[in-house]
Amino acid sequence: MAKVSPRTLSGFMELSPRDQMKMERMMQVLRESYSLYGFTPLDTPIIESSEVLLAKGGGDTEKQIYRFLKGDSDLALRFDLTVPLAKYVAAHYGELSFPFRRYQIGKVYRGERAQRGRFREFYQADIDVIGDGKLDIMNEAEIPSIIYSVFTKLGLKKFKIKVNNRKILNGFYAMNGMSEKAGEIMRTVDKLDKIGPEKVKQLLIDEVKMLPVKSENVLDFMAIQGDNAYVLSRLEQYRGMDATFDAGLDELIAVTKYLRDFGVPEENFAVDLTIARGLDYYTGTVYETEMTEHPEIGSVCSGGRYDNLAEYYTDKQLPGVGISIGLTRLFYVLNEQGLLSDEIITAPCDALVLPMTGEMGPAVAAATALRRAGVRTQLYGEQKKFKAKMNYADRIGVPYVVLLGEDEIAAGVVSVKDMASGEQQKLSPAEAAAFIRAAVEKRSAGAVIKE
Amino acid sequence: MAKVSPRTLSGFMELSPRDQMKMERMMQVLRESYSLYGFTPLDTPIIESSEVLLAKGGGDTEKQIYRFLKGDSDLALRFDLTVPLAKYVAAHYGELSFPFRRYQIGKVYRGERAQRGRFREFYQADIDVIGDGKLDIMNEAEIPSIIYSVFTKLGLKKFKIKVNNRKILNGFYAMNGMSEKAGEIMRTVDKLDKIGPEKVKQLLIDEVKMLPVKSENVLDFMAIQGDNAYVLSRLEQYRGMDATFDAGLDELIAVTKYLRDFGVPEENFAVDLTIARGLDYYTGTVYETEMTEHPEIGSVCSGGRYDNLAEYYTDKQLPGVGISIGLTRLFYVLNEQGLLSDEIITAPCDALVLPMTGEMGPAVAAATALRRAGVRTQLYGEQKKFKAKMNYADRIGVPYVVLLGEDEIAAGVVSVKDMASGEQQKLSPAEAAAFIRAAVEKRSAGAVIKE
Repeated sequence: MAKVSPRTLSGFMELSPRDQMKMERMMQVLRESYSLYGFTPLDTPIIESSEVLLAKGGGDTEKQIYRFLKGDSDLALRFDLTVPLAKYVAAHYGELSFPFRRYQIGKVYRGERAQRGRFREFYQADIDVIGDGKLDIMNEAEIPSIIYSVFTKLGLKKFKIKVNNRKILNGFYAMNGMSEKAGEIMRTVDKLDKIGPEKVKQLLIDEVKMLPVKSENVLDFMAIQGDNAYVLSRLEQYRGMDATFDAGLDELIAVTKYLRDFGVPEENFAVDLTIARGLDYYTGTVYETEMTEHPEIGSVCSGGRYDNLAEYYTDKQLPGVGISIGLTRLFYVLNEQGLLSDEIITAPCDALVLPMTGEMGPAVAAATALRRAGVRTQLYGEQKKFKAKMNYADRIGVPYVVLLGEDEIAAGVVSVKDMASGEQQKLSPAEAAAFIRAAVEKRSAGAVIKE
Repeated sequence: MAKVSPRTLSGFMELSPRDQMKMERMMQVLRESYSLYGFTPLDTPIIESSEVLLAKGGGDTEKQIYRFLKGDSDLALRFDLTVPLAKYVAAHYGELSFPFRRYQIGKVYRGERAQRGRFREFYQADIDVIGDGKLDIMNEAEIPSIIYSVFTKLGLKKFKIKVNNRKILNGFYAMNGMSEKAGEIMRTVDKLDKIGPEKVKQLLIDEVKMLPVKSENVLDFMAIQGDNAYVLSRLEQYRGMDATFDAGLDELIAVTKYLRDFGVPEENFAVDLTIARGLDYYTGTVYETEMTEHPEIGSVCSGGRYDNLAEYYTDKQLPGVGISIGLTRLFYVLNEQGLLSDEIITAPCDALVLPMTGEMGPAVAAATALRRAGVRTQLYGEQKKFKAKMNYADRIGVPYVVLLGEDEIAAGVVSVKDMASGEQQKLSPAEAAAFIRAAVEKRSAGAVIKE
């Protein structure tokens, strides 16, 4: 029979069993952390009506969207988790309680040009808090504090959550008479990291058509750097010139104060005036998160405050604040950088029960005792030679093998072999279960990311 | 601005927050149970190349498939998790260790005619064990024993896993000289439940063109019912007439013996000769699972043994056995039947911390203490009147409210209010955390399904 080549599409991540275990571990940390902060899980369809999904108009994203007809229906695959959230909240407004706090971890689709490290199907892991009409500023600090908690639990240490406020930027541009060009300026300033201040200045003059003195004002402002107290004190010098700026500064001061209240160490967050976030809908606090030793990766977690989540679906004013981890890309870069731990158990099981005789009863009993104790256990049932069985144990990387030969069966015990040390001991099934459980728990306590 | 109606496509499940919590609970039980038996999680793309996905030809399924072009690529959404598994195993054969045991819980897509209780996007929760060339019969008993364990943990009691063997059916038809018509006969016999033996007999005579005496043979065979020992003893009477039949009977005897070894009670499994499973690729043991008080629902979990998982992709002989829970449909029918428990906590959090003064520090400290103890905690930060805050607590259904007024802050305590009983007590933050944690754990021990 002619065979079809069993390939996976480029731009679609499909992991080895061991890597998948690490990914699951990350997802479990995310689910638990988001739940711990009182976010409810949401699961929306991957397919939506194109009219609903593209209500806002897609902008740059639109040509990347997977859109197709099925019968008469014009359908599209979601390209983020924010539009489905807006739809959900607008559709169920009457049944929900506000502030509505939801998390969603799900796949989204963008038909980007295929290139290494870029994905067309990827997980986003989002949290958002949506208010009804109003939403307290405290939420704008709690959101990055949750991200701090998540990254810390994942084992990441060297990261910085950069915080800014769009009102400060808009106010600054207004006080300089540059409001109309604010969008263009922000896009140009965004290149600071890549091309440096001199070239940005030249672009501001040549392409944005700014006066040299004004472009210098912009660069001076963006150059304000230092610890959070220093940056805030420098910003105070602009106070009184523009109401929007002042409001933004008050918010930024409140957010930094709350971030300390929430226990986020100073080294893990920084006021950074160069952060703007391209998307139009952010109106206040904005975030990006940098792995401090890998700035080349770009932001691994971004978001901000918006005033109107669902304006394309409802007249209700629904302000919110949210943040998104690009999980597939984060996993990819951590793996590429060798930052994923090999200490955690990535075998399909913690214990492999190997019956050495034809008698299955004692092996089944041992497996049952292990599973009752919460030990992930595989019962090996194939008729193979001892060596082949041990080779299998080696290949799957199982930490413990539980042997049941004639002697063990006669004595009512099992032999537990530690595959790392080679040590072997005879224990009752209950003792074996407790022993392996404790050893496995110890290893499971380690984080998935090492740094 | 003109608004777009925020609708969800028909045939796509989108749950309320409370229902979603129950669904998550079910998924967590599945993930934990499958892991406990040593299955490794797998996550394959939802989009595949149409050539790969339809290598086998789709048959009935083909016209239901979501298939579309993106640029030059002919793409399709997966319609089950078996074809992606076949592709994965064929593509990574050299890196995998066999038996390869994987679980996958994921969405699949079939553009069925929209009707109540039918879904176009639905979760399947699959386990499969794949052998390299050979696979021991023990696996064919372990798979339904895992399903027994899963359903029991979910809280389901009144269910029966029906077991049959395709070799017994094929052997029986062979010994009656009806092999060529076996497919047609099985499809007709499949209607026994719906139209009864008399009409099935008539169809066998009129449409399958069988002699009346032969159609009676078939119906007599299918009418063999009773406890497992009795059915097996009746089957023994056919032994010696057909080698395939005899092989199937040996397998069935082995499977029922192992099922007892694995601790599956007699009332939860039954040898049932009417079970055939339509799909061509099953070659041995087949399963269906019935909710005994709701036979009208049909099988909620089906599968079986196949000889060649990936023959469209590789020459390697890859026998396997697997089973699939149609999770979305199962959730739907349990919900419709009122079988989902309202005892488990479905609020987004276990504790809602309500600051009653402008001072946030103590509230943040209390929330942090609760979270450290594993209590899912929301810190309420909105500036609202007391009554509005308590209304919110009521609406989200949170079991405990933690109040921080001036008195509490001065005394270094918190007031914990049990929202069900109305009882209120003052405790230190650490005591409050331990108290709520214990109460929540007790409630969380309950199963998601009540019967």
